[in-house]
Amino acid sequence: MSRERFFADEHRIIDAAISLICENGYEKFSTRRLAARLGVSPMTLYNYFSNKEEIVQVTISTAYEKAFEAIQDDLRGYFERESACPLMGFVEMGRKLFAFSKQYPQMYALVFVMNFSPYRDQPSLVECYNYTFKKVFERLVDKNIEEELHRHIYLFQVLVSALVRNIYNKLGPTDEETFEINLLLAYNRLLKPFERYFAVCQGIQ
Amino acid sequence: MSRERFFADEHRIIDAAISLICENGYEKFSTRRLAARLGVSPMTLYNYFSNKEEIVQVTISTAYEKAFEAIQDDLRGYFERESACPLMGFVEMGRKLFAFSKQYPQMYALVFVMNFSPYRDQPSLVECYNYTFKKVFERLVDKNIEEELHRHIYLFQVLVSALVRNIYNKLGPTDEETFEINLLLAYNRLLKPFERYFAVCQGIQ
Repeated sequence: MSRERFFADEHRIIDAAISLICENGYEKFSTRRLAARLGVSPMTLYNYFSNKEEIVQVTISTAYEKAFEAIQDDLRGYFERESACPLMGFVEMGRKLFAFSKQYPQMYALVFVMNFSPYRDQPSLVECYNYTFKKVFERLVDKNIEEELHRHIYLFQVLVSALVRNIYNKLGPTDEETFEINLLLAYNRLLKPFERYFAVCQGIQ
Repeated sequence: MSRERFFADEHRIIDAAISLICENGYEKFSTRRLAARLGVSPMTLYNYFSNKEEIVQVTISTAYEKAFEAIQDDLRGYFERESACPLMGFVEMGRKLFAFSKQYPQMYALVFVMNFSPYRDQPSLVECYNYTFKKVFERLVDKNIEEELHRHIYLFQVLVSALVRNIYNKLGPTDEETFEINLLLAYNRLLKPFERYFAVCQGIQ
């Protein structure tokens, strides 16, 4: 088997594993089901991975990266476009996270709720956060405010993640309208006061 | 066996089950270990409970009630004392939750992190929240502000619970000082603007 062929197959296995976990949840995932989905024997999988644990590990890493790449691509506009207020990028991140949790609830649970300890320090997760901070601070007029702004962004992100998680866990109202009201309220209280430190945010009400 | 004796024994079993879960976590809990802790045979437990599931269920309910009774007792001062600003009661609730998570991490995980779906609508949990809202709204001068205040209190509580949960999960700094800074920042942004609607909060800076 060629090197290209090997990696193409590995990719196909991981894609199928992500689909299976998204459809049925992590608990029901097994190499037997994965092999059936791919139309191969379970033994075939062991040409690519040494055990189930390795498949799961690579699958979760890949899921993380896919989730954050998708979110990050959409966010470039908010954080890099000259005419966009970068603070509003965090509102957009909240909306993306909410949409992701609704569209792929199993994947959302895997990446954001189950909190597998080896995976939560994922480079893609850390990178995504660092990228947004960097892009915001680049455009900050008054550098003295950096630490205070950082703390407010942190609180905003913790709050929005918790709102999405509560909706996923069906605690309180789960509709998009209520989420949007809470998201904007959080923005108004925690980030809006910093708009005056960004030339581009001045016009926004 | 007398009725009193029966309930006293039942109580002792639940106390031991709470201790065991607090010490070793839920995963390692078994009726065998529980019986060993009590110095009885596993069969003896079945005079009181029909199966392990029932023991766990009653134990978690009791843990919930203990957690909330303890927190609620401490909070009466903030929510009922004429001279205390009731909004500050929510800051105190945050501190209690943080202290609880540090003192009884296993119990905290059981009640607040694992999110066992049948237990999260616990009457004591709902009661505790309703009690604090009621006590705050009783003293609200302008009733038109009630809905807006309710939404802000909700956001504050979601944020503070998430901060404590992140600390438990060792995401970000876990020290008390950072928690206290974030807690007061959340208060200043979300609840402090409402102090002017409470006669008793006026003097607070």
